[in-house]
Amino acid sequence: MNRFLTVVSVEEAVRTLQSLASPPKPETVPLAGSLQRVLAEDVRSDSDIPGFDRSTVDGFAVLARDTVGASDSLPALLYFRGRISMGSPPSVGIRTGECAYIPTGGVLPQGADAVAMIEYSEQVEDQVLIQRPVAPGENVVQRGEDFARGSMILSRGHLLRPQDLGVLAAAGFTESAVYRNPRIGVISTGNELVPVDQDPRPGQVRDANSFMIQGFFAEHGCEPRRYGIVPDDPHLFREALEHALPKSDAVIISGGSSKDVRDVCAQVIGELGEVRIHGISIQPGKPTIIGKIGAIPVIGLPGHPASAYIVVRVLVTPLLERMTGRSFPPVIASAVLAENIPSPKGREDYVRVRLEEGKAIPLFGKSGLLNTLVQSEGMVRIPAGSEGLEAGEMVEVIRW
Amino acid sequence: MNRFLTVVSVEEAVRTLQSLASPPKPETVPLAGSLQRVLAEDVRSDSDIPGFDRSTVDGFAVLARDTVGASDSLPALLYFRGRISMGSPPSVGIRTGECAYIPTGGVLPQGADAVAMIEYSEQVEDQVLIQRPVAPGENVVQRGEDFARGSMILSRGHLLRPQDLGVLAAAGFTESAVYRNPRIGVISTGNELVPVDQDPRPGQVRDANSFMIQGFFAEHGCEPRRYGIVPDDPHLFREALEHALPKSDAVIISGGSSKDVRDVCAQVIGELGEVRIHGISIQPGKPTIIGKIGAIPVIGLPGHPASAYIVVRVLVTPLLERMTGRSFPPVIASAVLAENIPSPKGREDYVRVRLEEGKAIPLFGKSGLLNTLVQSEGMVRIPAGSEGLEAGEMVEVIRW
Repeated sequence: MNRFLTVVSVEEAVRTLQSLASPPKPETVPLAGSLQRVLAEDVRSDSDIPGFDRSTVDGFAVLARDTVGASDSLPALLYFRGRISMGSPPSVGIRTGECAYIPTGGVLPQGADAVAMIEYSEQVEDQVLIQRPVAPGENVVQRGEDFARGSMILSRGHLLRPQDLGVLAAAGFTESAVYRNPRIGVISTGNELVPVDQDPRPGQVRDANSFMIQGFFAEHGCEPRRYGIVPDDPHLFREALEHALPKSDAVIISGGSSKDVRDVCAQVIGELGEVRIHGISIQPGKPTIIGKIGAIPVIGLPGHPASAYIVVRVLVTPLLERMTGRSFPPVIASAVLAENIPSPKGREDYVRVRLEEGKAIPLFGKSGLLNTLVQSEGMVRIPAGSEGLEAGEMVEVIRW
Repeated sequence: MNRFLTVVSVEEAVRTLQSLASPPKPETVPLAGSLQRVLAEDVRSDSDIPGFDRSTVDGFAVLARDTVGASDSLPALLYFRGRISMGSPPSVGIRTGECAYIPTGGVLPQGADAVAMIEYSEQVEDQVLIQRPVAPGENVVQRGEDFARGSMILSRGHLLRPQDLGVLAAAGFTESAVYRNPRIGVISTGNELVPVDQDPRPGQVRDANSFMIQGFFAEHGCEPRRYGIVPDDPHLFREALEHALPKSDAVIISGGSSKDVRDVCAQVIGELGEVRIHGISIQPGKPTIIGKIGAIPVIGLPGHPASAYIVVRVLVTPLLERMTGRSFPPVIASAVLAENIPSPKGREDYVRVRLEEGKAIPLFGKSGLLNTLVQSEGMVRIPAGSEGLEAGEMVEVIRW
């Protein structure tokens, strides 16, 4: 195998990855569990909401024309016919010169066309003084005014927010048809890796990346599952892949940072499927592998934690937008760059930064360290066409 | 009871609510489940990470001084002593004039102080040509360079991101001590409410708000639980509260919009505890009740969906910041206001808006409707001191 990678641009890597995405599949979940899920179909109302003309205030149901010109000094005098109860059809109707007490949410009685607020009314035995005129329809929600029967409530592709769950409940949906969360298999490789609960012996390190990667996918609407640590052996690696593939919509290989591991990874992906990209013009993150086995995208991440994290954020996020039907717009903070960031032309660089009082302070630590990743609040992108950024420039920080 | 509420300012309501919050309690959760949770204690490293001097590249472990002046035309010539294996202590050491192959992540052998990258080296049998000089420490992560034993990794109050899970794994934590998610009891009241799976009869509506409220709390790091629908009867309502209180860190009463329901709600809270606020100078949302039973804050939300939603976002979010240890900064979009928004002085108004091509279009629909809430992308605040906003003004839209 060639020791120098044939690198492709970030754009090409993103395009390739997106082309490997299978579209999201629908599933049905209970309404309360569908928050921040994406609707897999249009939702229409099967009935008028509300199903009756409804008062929006506590007050008196009236005929609007009976209140024309009413004021404190010259109130309209109406005959009290009774009270509307909540939750049942009105037992009274009114005619001109009459009114009925109606609570907020109550059914407008036969004959009434508006509600006078209780704040501007006064009841004296069976007489009610109305001190403000009301217009027809005032303080009333008409039947079907919120959603008419058959009208579109929410459309396919909509990300469900709390108020959307409310409207689905109002329309009688106890379940939602949403896109399934992609299942992401995470396989750790590398002879040096030991599980978290083990004390590393000389030469060993704990498998930190797979937890970071799992967290990233959980944060992006996926169901990640770690498939443990596999030594850097083609047979065992192939076994692990064949175990994870049938249960995954994408497989991520995490951990090993040596060329040997990358070679094993590329070799086995090539045997079972196809390596599409091996090397990307991105720093950090160059030795990334992108392949496909059957319909499943397989991504070999670089072993350095900062490299792996930047690769998932920059390259894998657009893939997940395709796979989940969601969009993950970056959260941007503007800041003044505190130091020069040089960058070779032709390579897209991502530099971790700390944010402090409106300044973006680059953290130039080695990408093999976790500490700069933990201390940073985001990253600054230096496009492939640029030779770097200068101290004092206003830059966009992509928050994480 | 007085028909006009004694209203307090939004500031006072927020202050009162925050004073009712009990501080978050710690619990221990598995590492992978601690994403977006807040650390309840400082975390220090119990060992050096990494535990040995580690190569950050594939290449040859060397003595830096042996490579001084090396170039393509005049490479340093070193004697090849063997290969370092991943995951175990080196079986070879080197002396001046010697080198050993080392993979990324391998343990630097005895005697070496730098690594020459494989890209600038060439092996010919037992001789290796090094074509670039390296400085002492180059391409090496020193023992403890990421985190030294005893050093602070993450501090109490830190919100755990994917990379933080990575560093906790690296330090051997299989569990995290985080703040418990507050348990929020949601009780629906109102004789007109029927469960979602039921067809409303005349006068009835489905209980939509409790799903919206549940969604809001789930979105804000809580564990909401719906306790069903209680008719507007003091005895039954008291029973429901006494059932929910022991299992909740806060109780929300959702649903009923009529004065009768609010009165029952205030009466029972007063009997079991104390009503602190009944009426807030906010539109929509005025008839909100804030009380306390034992150590538990109890909030009676207005029945109109838009009112209830704006009250939880504006008033309950600051309470949740205290109860969760998290911060929920608003996501702000700047936009040009498309229409005038009048507002009476002395009242804080929130107007739902749709965002369209940089414009904020006010949705003035009745607060009893769900549709404006569903169609909106956020809200614009008109402070109590203002008499409104003018079309063409730049406004801050609080996204939802």
